[in-house]
Amino acid sequence: MSDSPATVFDRILAGEIPCHRVYEDEHVLAFLDVGPLAEGHTLVIPKERKAHLHELSDESAAALGRVLPRLCRAVLQATGATDYNVLQNNGRRASQAVMHVHFHIIPKVGRTGLGITWPAGNLEAATAAELLAKMRSALAAEEGGAPAGGEEQP
Amino acid sequence: MSDSPATVFDRILAGEIPCHRVYEDEHVLAFLDVGPLAEGHTLVIPKERKAHLHELSDESAAALGRVLPRLCRAVLQATGATDYNVLQNNGRRASQAVMHVHFHIIPKVGRTGLGITWPAGNLEAATAAELLAKMRSALAAEEGGAPAGGEEQP
Repeated sequence: MSDSPATVFDRILAGEIPCHRVYEDEHVLAFLDVGPLAEGHTLVIPKERKAHLHELSDESAAALGRVLPRLCRAVLQATGATDYNVLQNNGRRASQAVMHVHFHIIPKVGRTGLGITWPAGNLEAATAAELLAKMRSALAAEEGGAPAGGEEQP
Repeated sequence: MSDSPATVFDRILAGEIPCHRVYEDEHVLAFLDVGPLAEGHTLVIPKERKAHLHELSDESAAALGRVLPRLCRAVLQATGATDYNVLQNNGRRASQAVMHVHFHIIPKVGRTGLGITWPAGNLEAATAAELLAKMRSALAAEEGGAPAGGEEQP
């Protein structure tokens, strides 16, 4: 099933630990976060055991992407929230606590919800050109990759 | 194409405004954020013009989900980062600045990257039961919805 170490989410997926199950299909399980940042805070996980998003198969990732809008609608209807964040953390430094891919759907209501700080910088042309060359090369090296051509910003 | 107001992303999609294009396919465009939180900060948007994730079609959402892992790999390879956040904001209160769905891929390197605060609460059983009933009802009302049965947490 995987090359990632087992986590508590495996035990939830196996039914060994109960969860507040919202939705389930062949590829995906969604359940309420027991440590919510806001009422209705929901976790959406692939059944494929991978620690990080970049390790996930196309098939799992597509199945997960497909149900996200539907689950967001359910969260909004249940809570009455209109604003929300969808967050997926990878690695300890990026606040990942359970090493199995999970998307958070977090309503933003009053003071509850995700706190964000946004220390934006500026993208320099030389940096952009260097990054683009590397990223397109990485994409081209992937099976089925479709690197973009087209214009760059001056 | 849509019932959402036009944004700067429509002009990027139409080629009227240049972008640092990383990837493009039938449903998705990815480009470097010009106000990056960290080097390699990348935006991934659907070509479908919708302001919020909960409004997006299954098809667009699946296409977007499918390419996310591949784009994350490209960001990591280009930057050397190992940790990163994927964030998608909906609504002004949730820090959404451009009203066209977009996923941020944001490397977390040193002090750069997304700042997060995590004021977690506790999920009470009564709240969970109430939320689950509403969410399952919302999912069941959707065409093709597949509400989950199964056990709840005591």
